[in-house]
Formats: sequence, C-alpha cells, structure tokens
Amino acid sequence: MNLRDSILGTDQYQLAMAQLYWKEGLADRPAQFDYFFRSYPDYGTHQAGYCVSAGLGWLLEWMESARFGDGEIEALSQQMSAAGRPRFDRNFLDWLRDNGDFSAVEVRAVLEGRVVHANAPVAVVTGPLAMCQILETPFLNRLNYPTLIATKAARVAEASRDSTVLEFGMRRGPETGAHAGGFGALVGGADFTSNVALSHAIGLDPKGTHAHSLVQAVMALGGSEEEAFRKFADIYPDECVLLVDTIDVVRSGVPNAIKVFEELREKGHQPVGIRIDSGDLAYLTIQAARLLDDAGFEDVAIVLSSDLDELVIWQILSQLEAEAGTYGLDSRRLIARMTFGVGTRLISSHGAPALGGVYKLVAIRDEHDEWRPAIKLSETAEKMPIPGEKDLVRIYDDRGLSTADVVARAGESLDPPLQLFHPHRDLERTLAGGEISETEPLLTEVFSDGKRKDGSPDLQTLRERRRHDLDRLDPGVRRLVNPHIYHVSLTRSMKELQLDLITRFRAR
Amino acid sequence: MNLRDSILGTDQYQLAMAQLYWKEGLADRPAQFDYFFRSYPDYGTHQAGYCVSAGLGWLLEWMESARFGDGEIEALSQQMSAAGRPRFDRNFLDWLRDNGDFSAVEVRAVLEGRVVHANAPVAVVTGPLAMCQILETPFLNRLNYPTLIATKAARVAEASRDSTVLEFGMRRGPETGAHAGGFGALVGGADFTSNVALSHAIGLDPKGTHAHSLVQAVMALGGSEEEAFRKFADIYPDECVLLVDTIDVVRSGVPNAIKVFEELREKGHQPVGIRIDSGDLAYLTIQAARLLDDAGFEDVAIVLSSDLDELVIWQILSQLEAEAGTYGLDSRRLIARMTFGVGTRLISSHGAPALGGVYKLVAIRDEHDEWRPAIKLSETAEKMPIPGEKDLVRIYDDRGLSTADVVARAGESLDPPLQLFHPHRDLERTLAGGEISETEPLLTEVFSDGKRKDGSPDLQTLRERRRHDLDRLDPGVRRLVNPHIYHVSLTRSMKELQLDLITRFRAR
Repeated sequence: MNLRDSILGTDQYQLAMAQLYWKEGLADRPAQFDYFFRSYPDYGTHQAGYCVSAGLGWLLEWMESARFGDGEIEALSQQMSAAGRPRFDRNFLDWLRDNGDFSAVEVRAVLEGRVVHANAPVAVVTGPLAMCQILETPFLNRLNYPTLIATKAARVAEASRDSTVLEFGMRRGPETGAHAGGFGALVGGADFTSNVALSHAIGLDPKGTHAHSLVQAVMALGGSEEEAFRKFADIYPDECVLLVDTIDVVRSGVPNAIKVFEELREKGHQPVGIRIDSGDLAYLTIQAARLLDDAGFEDVAIVLSSDLDELVIWQILSQLEAEAGTYGLDSRRLIARMTFGVGTRLISSHGAPALGGVYKLVAIRDEHDEWRPAIKLSETAEKMPIPGEKDLVRIYDDRGLSTADVVARAGESLDPPLQLFHPHRDLERTLAGGEISETEPLLTEVFSDGKRKDGSPDLQTLRERRRHDLDRLDPGVRRLVNPHIYHVSLTRSMKELQLDLITRFRAR
Repeated sequence: MNLRDSILGTDQYQLAMAQLYWKEGLADRPAQFDYFFRSYPDYGTHQAGYCVSAGLGWLLEWMESARFGDGEIEALSQQMSAAGRPRFDRNFLDWLRDNGDFSAVEVRAVLEGRVVHANAPVAVVTGPLAMCQILETPFLNRLNYPTLIATKAARVAEASRDSTVLEFGMRRGPETGAHAGGFGALVGGADFTSNVALSHAIGLDPKGTHAHSLVQAVMALGGSEEEAFRKFADIYPDECVLLVDTIDVVRSGVPNAIKVFEELREKGHQPVGIRIDSGDLAYLTIQAARLLDDAGFEDVAIVLSSDLDELVIWQILSQLEAEAGTYGLDSRRLIARMTFGVGTRLISSHGAPALGGVYKLVAIRDEHDEWRPAIKLSETAEKMPIPGEKDLVRIYDDRGLSTADVVARAGESLDPPLQLFHPHRDLERTLAGGEISETEPLLTEVFSDGKRKDGSPDLQTLRERRRHDLDRLDPGVRRLVNPHIYHVSLTRSMKELQLDLITRFRAR
C-alpha cells in the first residue's frame, strides 16, 4: 500500500458512508456529484476574477489505477469500533475488493487549462453512490491545489506582460505536492520550471542559473566572484546566466559579469543573462541595465527573483516604464529583456493558500430509475448547490468575448431571448439574439469505462486552451485588482427547479 | 523514475553547480550547509513566537534510498545546451551514477517534534560539496512545509485548550503533499486525522462522522433527516456522531439527533456526539448544548468544523465562557465537551502559507583540510547567515524555562557569565551563573553512513517532545497574538568570527 497513491487517500467518513450505503442496498445506486468552487481566490487586497483549471489529467490517470487491493482491505479489516468490534463488515470489504474501483464512474468536465468560474460546475461525476462518495476527497485534493496555482500563475503572467516567467518554488512548496503545484504553474502561465523531475516527466527543458553558494564556495577557498563567474562561463558558455548579488550588484556583481561576458563574446558565445535575487529590484535593474548597455550587452537578459508575485512584478514593470527614460534607457527594450523567477508566492498562492472547491451530491436515481435532485438547506445561502442534472454553456457576446457561463438543465436548449438568473438571487438580465455570437457547451466526457477520455493532452495543448480562453475574456475580468464580476447564471428552468426544491424542503 | 521520489526532485541549478564542482575537482570536497528559517510564520495579524520541527523522519527515510539510477542518468543525458550539445558531460554522469547518493552526507539536527526558533540552525548538513548541493532543494521541500503545518497545529491546540483537535484538511490540501501536512499537524497538535491512508501508515485510528450527502441522499429518495440519522446509528451504534446542520440545527438537526440518541441509549449504547459545520458556531453550540442537556445527553460531544483556525477557536471558546451562564449552562462542562475539526486553514497554514526556511553554505574545507567559513554579503543584513561550524545550545533560566538558543562555535564551552550577542546587531545581555539552570545541546546526529540515526521515533515520541518543549516555553512566547520574542543569540566567539569575515569580505 503506497501512502501517496492508495485509494485510502480519502476521508474516513467516506468509507463510513460507503458501508452504510452498501448495507442499505444503495452502494450501486447511480448518483451525481458536482465539483465547483464558490468564490475566486482572494489574495487580501486583490481577488481573482477567474480561475484556470488544472490537475484533471493527473487525477484521471490516478482514477484509472486506484482500487481497493489486498493492502487496503487488510488495513480496513484492522479498524476496530469503540466497542472493540471490526468497524467494517467482512461482506462489505468483499464488496469493496470486487467493486472498489472507478470503472463505473463517469466524469464530465471543463477541459484542463480552460478558464473556469465560481459557482459553475467544473466537473460532474456520475456513478455508483458508494464509489462516487469515496472519490470525493481525492477528487478535491487533486484538483483544488493545481487549479489554485494555475490561477496564481495566470495572474503572474498577466503582470509580467511578455516577459518569461520561471517557476522556482519547489523548496518552499508542499513536499511532493510541489510537483502538482509546479505543473499547475506551467499550465497557468509559467514558461519553465527549475524542478528537474517535473520537467523531465513532461518533456520540458528545466531552467536554472547558479546559487550564491557557488560564489561563496569559490571565495571561501581564496578565489573571487569573478573567478566563480569565469568557471561557470567556461562550463556553460552558451547558457551563461550569472547571479550578481552575492557581494554587491552594482560595485561587484555586474562589473565582474561584464568581464566574463566579454571573454565569452571574444570566444564567439552569446552571454544569456544576469540574475538579481535581493535588494531594491527595480533600482538595481536600471543600474545593471546601464552597465550592461555601456559594455554593449543590450540583449543580455535581467532575471529577477526574491519573493515575487503579480503585484510586485506589476510594480517593478511600472517603475521601469516610468523611470527608464530618466536614466537614458529605452523602457520598451528594458522591459523586453526582463525574466521573472517566481518561487514561494506562486507555489503557495500567497494571500489565498487554498481553493474552496467542493464536491456536492446533486442528484440520485430513485427505485424507478428517475433522477431525484438533492439539495442542502444550510444556514448560509451561498453554500446552497445548484441541484440536479445539468449542462454548462459559455455564451459569447457580439464582440466575441465570453459574457456568461450558464447552468442549464440537462439537454435544455438555450434560445434567445435568454433570461438569466443569479444562482442565489433574482433575475439578472435578458440576452437578445443579437447579443449572442456563440454558445459553447463546456462539459466534455473525460472519464468512462475506467479510462480517461480526454485524449491525454500535452502541456502545449493545455496552455493553448488557457491562452485562447484568456484572449476571449473581458480585460476587466482579467484585471489584477478589483476585476469585473463574471456572470454565472441559471436558466429559468434551472432557477425554477432550485426554488421548487427549496420550497418543498422548507415545508417538511 | 518515479516523479515524487526521484532524486531529480531538485532544482536544475543544483545539477549545474554539481557538474562545475566535479570539473573543478571539488565535487567530493567536504562542505557544510545550515538549514534555518529567518522569521516565524506571520499570519497577518498574529505572528508565531516559535515553530515545531516536523518532516525530518520522512526526509531521512527518503535520503536512505534516493540515488541517481539508470532512469535519472538517462534523463540527464538527454538535456541539450542552447548550442545543441549535451549539457552534462558523460564522465560527470558516470561520476553521478557511482557517487550520486547521500551515503557520505551527515546530518545533525534538532530532533523532530521539538520547538525551534528563527535564525538558529535546525539542521547542519556536512558532506561532499556536490551531493550536499543537490540535497538542498529536497531537504527544504521536505522540512519547510511539515514544520509550517506543525507550527499552525500547535497554535490551534493552544487555542483549543484541552479539547480534541481533528485534522480534516486533505480535500483542500496540496495534492500528495497533504499527507506530509497531515503528519505535521499530528506532530504539532492535532489528535487525529480523517486521512485514512495516513492514519494506517502511522498506526492511528482515523476519525470521521458523516457528510451532508448522507442526509441529502436519504431525503432525495423520500426519506427524512431522522431516518438518515437512524441508519447511521444502526450501523455505528458506539461511534455515533451526527451532522445536524443539513436543514436547520436547532429546529431539525438536534431534535432528530436526540430522538436517535434516545433509541441508542435504550439499546445500551452511548451516543458520541453531534457535528455543526455552518452558521454561527458559538450561538448554535449553546443552543445545541441546551437541547442535549435537557434530554439528558450532557456528555455528548459537540464537534465544530467550518473554516476554523486558532483565532476562530479562541473566539468561540471565549464566547462560550462568557455566555454559557446566561443560558443556564456550566461553561467548564460546555468547553470540556467541545471537539474541533480543523481543515483548510490548518493544512494551508492560512495567513502564512510558506515557511521561509533556507539551506546555506557556511563552511568548506580547503586543500589543507582546514574548514573555511563562507558568508554572503547580500543587500539585506537579515539575510546574512551565521558562518562556520557551530553548535546550538538551549539555555534554561532559574524557573526551568528556556530563555535562549545560543549559537556557539563547534566545541566551545559556555561558561557563565555568558555574553550573548544578537545575530545581526550588538551585545544583548549577559547571563550570570545563577540565571542558568541547564544548558542543553540541541543538535544530534540523525543521518550518517547512508542511514537515519534518529531511532525512527513513533508519533507518540514526537508529540511528547513537543509537549515537553512547550511546557518549558515561556507562556509569553506561546501567546497567539503579539508573543514575546525568544532570544536566539551568538556567543562572543561566534560574533567575532562573523564580524571578522564581514570586514575581510568588505575589504576585497
């Protein structure tokens, strides 16, 4: 039994409920659960206006192989109740051994890499009640975090304009979860990662420079920063990025880098860049750029790192834009040479370290094989899921930009004029035919018969989906601070179902 | 090559530097790196006053088996430089295949479960320069996050007084890293976890109740909340905790739970508890307690969940203490029956989602086999590591409470009067002999000859260390908000070494 891949990577209460369903003859009863999140990550002063879906491919791969094997059954058979009796019935464990996989579970989902919105189903899971219930925890665990990081990465990329973004966060990332976080970052907006294992697993070139320790080691042995740089240039002449802040960026690091770059140039190599990892990054960037330009290294990249996030990068680029001219630099060229290495604040989604995605029972088949919608009347209106079988349709306006994600009843046709209702309040607006340029169903079958059916897209495909969706998202919704609120709405028919159920439940 | 366990789970620049060291004949040169963090997690309004170390055992276990195998060598041999040539020399890869493990690396560390402080070395790593460098990223990755979560858990336990704390966070946790986070929580202060795989891996009973979906499923099929409760009680008569907020806590959930509890009692079973997962938790607790008491269920636990953290729990208990009497309840008995299920905000360390632990080169042996201290003169004084070989000693005052962690030079004896210096500023204070009741060396050999040497302590041992250390920590330092600052100091000899190196480096 492997701790990280076992199907027992779920919450205990899922197994407790599964046994109850089995005893009641409901274990195989078809049920439907929706995966959605209720609000966008809120980084304190600046809430996101959208999310980027990530993690689906790895989840589906796990679902293909996860099952209750001998190790899992043996472990569960050891659990004792407070009264000292086995907590799980031998016959239930036998049922689990024979039926305990996801071969009968179907998943429809918004494809990985796509822009997704609050209160709209990102995935719909249908299958035997017991196994769908056991799936809840790993399903959430494997989608929430990568989606959170992909979303942060999309914001970092937005702030970075056309600069390269490097994911540097493994050391501060959550143990083995850092790989999923790194992958989410690559889906959402990072161009490369320094994580070697992840890079090789997905066919990407890992990126990196050198650490302060290289300069320190050489200096501790009696050498100099310049010698450390020269050793690095000798061995990596065509990929030479030098870390210039071990001693002093302006007085030592950049002048020493320039000496070594000149030697490289004489030997016919093109120096790649310098990296600054501490201090006033905007100020040091301008000073370094002046020194590099004076030495004829206008194309050498300036890589910044050190607690960067979307606001810090935005601030640095704004300052470079405003001040470059004062120092005789061309701001456009300066900005074009920037690269951002983003570590801690990306991998930990600084400011909003968890996505509140939930997985809620929305329908169950009765003994006549009819779907019965399920609803929860909690104290908080916002926590009320949208009941029943459903479709999700993205509506594009007359500019070709997405204007609403609409939750409709399964199979319902969306004919204009289209009345749209707020999920928790009243009628919002009506869209006439001329206001709609395209309607796009978003939920696709991605898992059935125990196999992923999403075509196992490569990273490039996921990134193209993200770029394509962001291009069709209103710039106001993409805005880093105080974004427009994107509409997620219900059709009249779905709204009526919701109200009808609430009324009936309240009456009991 | 397994993505999550491969030694390639490191940053690319570690390999780039390792190759450089190999080419320079420095790959096997003994070097020393310190692992420490510069500041305590700061949750926005309330910074921690201490951390609890966690993750060491799992790290050491990984170090026992991690090595460059065929898969890793093959992957690296595929990397091409910008000029299209193999980035790694075949002879370097051969060296890695023969020497690429941690058998020559030694680790001394503060033992897992113990209280640790900012700017004091939590671990000291000594060994061949190249392998110590490659170890940096996985070392940080496998210690930072568990320590972060153990620290948060210690605060949650502090706020919860003697109540049981359950870790419920897997669904919002960072993919497979959630296991390490859950383990950190158990080391730091959580009593149990709902994570089944983790519980079985460490021999703990997994805890859980049931979800709203159970009540919803039964109701969608025409049944009632009461019937759902009864089904649960029938199958788990001695562990019956009922979730009472699917419809309405006071008007439906608790009255239905009481009916079912009465039936259980008649059959000779002791009902265990109710759980409330939404709404005004303090208010609902009081209302639920009154109903339960009136029905003679004074000992039934009240489990709370829903975005809890140390401040929310503190607030709830404060309010219960203040208001219980108004409602005819005994506040002591009320508080004693509380259990807290803590999910998202624990597993994600809400407010401070990353520990800034670093791993810095502090010394390297020269060709005469003499240790040479290494230092980095960055722009930021706080980023300057404490150089050279060192010991860490905890000093207890005349009350038996720990009063300072002192960084001394290796082998230095600490005789009173003991002058203590701030790591980045001047003389702080002098401790006379009468002010010192005990001095305790904190760094223990935990890894050598390729094997962990920490005795593979079980969870119970780790928790006892934590409790023992917290008992000897000043309550002012344990305080949740605005804690006293714990002293981490240098001896005169260590301070002089630091100043001497800075002067010499600045002179160059």
